Amino acid sequence: IKAQKPSVSNANTGERSEDTQTGFDFSGRRFAAGQFPFSVWARLMRRTILDYEDELLRPLPFNGAEALRQAVCDYLYHQRGMSVQPEQMIIGAGTEYLYTLIIQLLGKDKCFAVENPGYTKIPRIYEMNGVRTEYVDIDKKGISPQGLIDCGAEVVHISPCHHFPTGITMPADRRHELLNWADETGGYIIEDDYDSEYSRLTPTENLFTTDKNGRVIYLNTFSRTIAPSIRISYLVLPPELMKLYREKMKFLSCTVSGFEQYTLAAFISEGYFERHINRMRRYYKSLEKEVISVIRNSGLDSRVKIIENSSGLHFLMKLDTELSDSELRKLMRKNGISGSFLSDYLCKPDNAREHIIIVNYSNFNLDNLNKAIKILKKIL
Amino acid sequence: IKAQKPSVSNANTGERSEDTQTGFDFSGRRFAAGQFPFSVWARLMRRTILDYEDELLRPLPFNGAEALRQAVCDYLYHQRGMSVQPEQMIIGAGTEYLYTLIIQLLGKDKCFAVENPGYTKIPRIYEMNGVRTEYVDIDKKGISPQGLIDCGAEVVHISPCHHFPTGITMPADRRHELLNWADETGGYIIEDDYDSEYSRLTPTENLFTTDKNGRVIYLNTFSRTIAPSIRISYLVLPPELMKLYREKMKFLSCTVSGFEQYTLAAFISEGYFERHINRMRRYYKSLEKEVISVIRNSGLDSRVKIIENSSGLHFLMKLDTELSDSELRKLMRKNGISGSFLSDYLCKPDNAREHIIIVNYSNFNLDNLNKAIKILKKIL
Repeated sequence: IKAQKPSVSNANTGERSEDTQTGFDFSGRRFAAGQFPFSVWARLMRRTILDYEDELLRPLPFNGAEALRQAVCDYLYHQRGMSVQPEQMIIGAGTEYLYTLIIQLLGKDKCFAVENPGYTKIPRIYEMNGVRTEYVDIDKKGISPQGLIDCGAEVVHISPCHHFPTGITMPADRRHELLNWADETGGYIIEDDYDSEYSRLTPTENLFTTDKNGRVIYLNTFSRTIAPSIRISYLVLPPELMKLYREKMKFLSCTVSGFEQYTLAAFISEGYFERHINRMRRYYKSLEKEVISVIRNSGLDSRVKIIENSSGLHFLMKLDTELSDSELRKLMRKNGISGSFLSDYLCKPDNAREHIIIVNYSNFNLDNLNKAIKILKKIL
Repeated sequence: IKAQKPSVSNANTGERSEDTQTGFDFSGRRFAAGQFPFSVWARLMRRTILDYEDELLRPLPFNGAEALRQAVCDYLYHQRGMSVQPEQMIIGAGTEYLYTLIIQLLGKDKCFAVENPGYTKIPRIYEMNGVRTEYVDIDKKGISPQGLIDCGAEVVHISPCHHFPTGITMPADRRHELLNWADETGGYIIEDDYDSEYSRLTPTENLFTTDKNGRVIYLNTFSRTIAPSIRISYLVLPPELMKLYREKMKFLSCTVSGFEQYTLAAFISEGYFERHINRMRRYYKSLEKEVISVIRNSGLDSRVKIIENSSGLHFLMKLDTELSDSELRKLMRKNGISGSFLSDYLCKPDNAREHIIIVNYSNFNLDNLNKAIKILKKIL
């Protein structure tokens, strides 16, 4: 199966598309303005310059600043019940960079499985690195071990806490099945915990913690929780893989600047991060309510089904129409609105007729939403 | 030829080795303390937060912030006579990351040639990415086209302005020979301009500018000129390769945080960077004089030959001894001093007997140097 082309809406490309700049984008990835505590960040940054002048003039340790790794470990322990040592952690400039490190660590000869539908950048990065990549369909519980066995996968990349774009949280029985698959086959599970902080479900124990045999690689990012223009992510490796990393890849320089690592360390260890997350959770929860209420009161109610997934930043909106997703997209664009469809995240999106729009409301203006919904009503 | 193992002194690993922390390291890569204008940086960072709040909450363009690319282009035009458009530039988190992007862009099936001796991280990164890597010996002018033809290289990675560790600047005739090689064979030249700002020679026209046929990829970094813990580097691609990059790799997110990109953009465009470089040049020039004078007056003069290379941050020190480099290293370590040898940067460093130490004086304390030289004298 070939890598999926970027969707027309550019939702996946990291570059703002022309059309979404002018009109209303249902799936825009911009963040809520005025919500990040910039003044705290500026103050901590200034303190970093005073406190760490000496460290800033030295190369960083290959796996990142000790202070940041320790702060993240403490946070993971208190918030997620994860018992992780700073020596197991590698700080890197964004999850995409970390994916490449994982490929280099596990080897390009391995077969990597990804979720279908799923976040399309992941297979594109595997394929760009010349790695055999298999798309495995998900069911209501997420990816299944049988799918992995059928395609001969040796590594599987999943988001069990919160699957994108469906929002599925993998139940305990499926998690155990996957861990058994890894134990029995010697496979590895990449647990991509992207966005888990915004999940409004009680956090379930993650795979990394349940795993007893060193089969799970955990990764997460601060780009979603702090600001998209912050490029700080981290990898937690089981001890044996960390040993291999030290042997094979310790010579690689850390990719995140010291200034931001020390600033983020203080931001986390002094409680600002937790407070920020809690504030954002409340903010997004109330914003979601308002957004849904605008849609419900628009008179579009009968033609629209909202599929909430408690993910905190987006929900799915299924439209009742005879149009195909691509016809719908064309009509939307013509009228100055845009959005990504669930089918954009399938490995074969052709002729999809699900009409499920991904509604990322994190930076919605309710007046503009109202106008956009009216346009959508006209189209339907 | 196998990848070179990291030298015992860890000069290449990016991680500080135990021994260099306690004793005197002739080749330490730490920077001169108190030399970076931290207060200016802090002020610009604060302004970035005020001026760019909106941009900081959006994903960055794939190739980096427009403001930074424009500032670097202007700088390159005024300082290096390079005519480059911001659209040709890709900002990335360190040169090592950029090497990986180049491999992904040109393809893993290409054969890459590197300089022998040379900066050992470069071949290690190529080899880690599964790329065929050939070590080509350099002569007094640098790498030769005949060496490239002999090994079937399709891409060559060089530092023509300032070769590490020898400090050789490639003369014009050799540059033209290499460009001819690229034109005739369809090969590519990676011009790694690392450290060129500190070169005290009149800057020669670089390969990127001389090239008329789109065969040269230019790259440089701010980690050496600002601080090692800053991870901002950039790539300049000829138009055709930039087109290919957009088609193939535009979906990759930029790896450098917005905060630092906007701050660096202001630091460059408001003239602070140029002033900083000029100040550092003067500082290093006078420090080099003092360091050489300490060595000359140590009574070690007759056993030592200093090979200056006008590189601004290091010179070579050839010792007159019967000991092999590895015996010398052992004796040095036993006495609490350390250093990298030129032979550490050869692809086959075994049994080297050149006794050339790389003296990186950027953070030398002259008293400690005096003590270290006395120890060295005792050993010899």
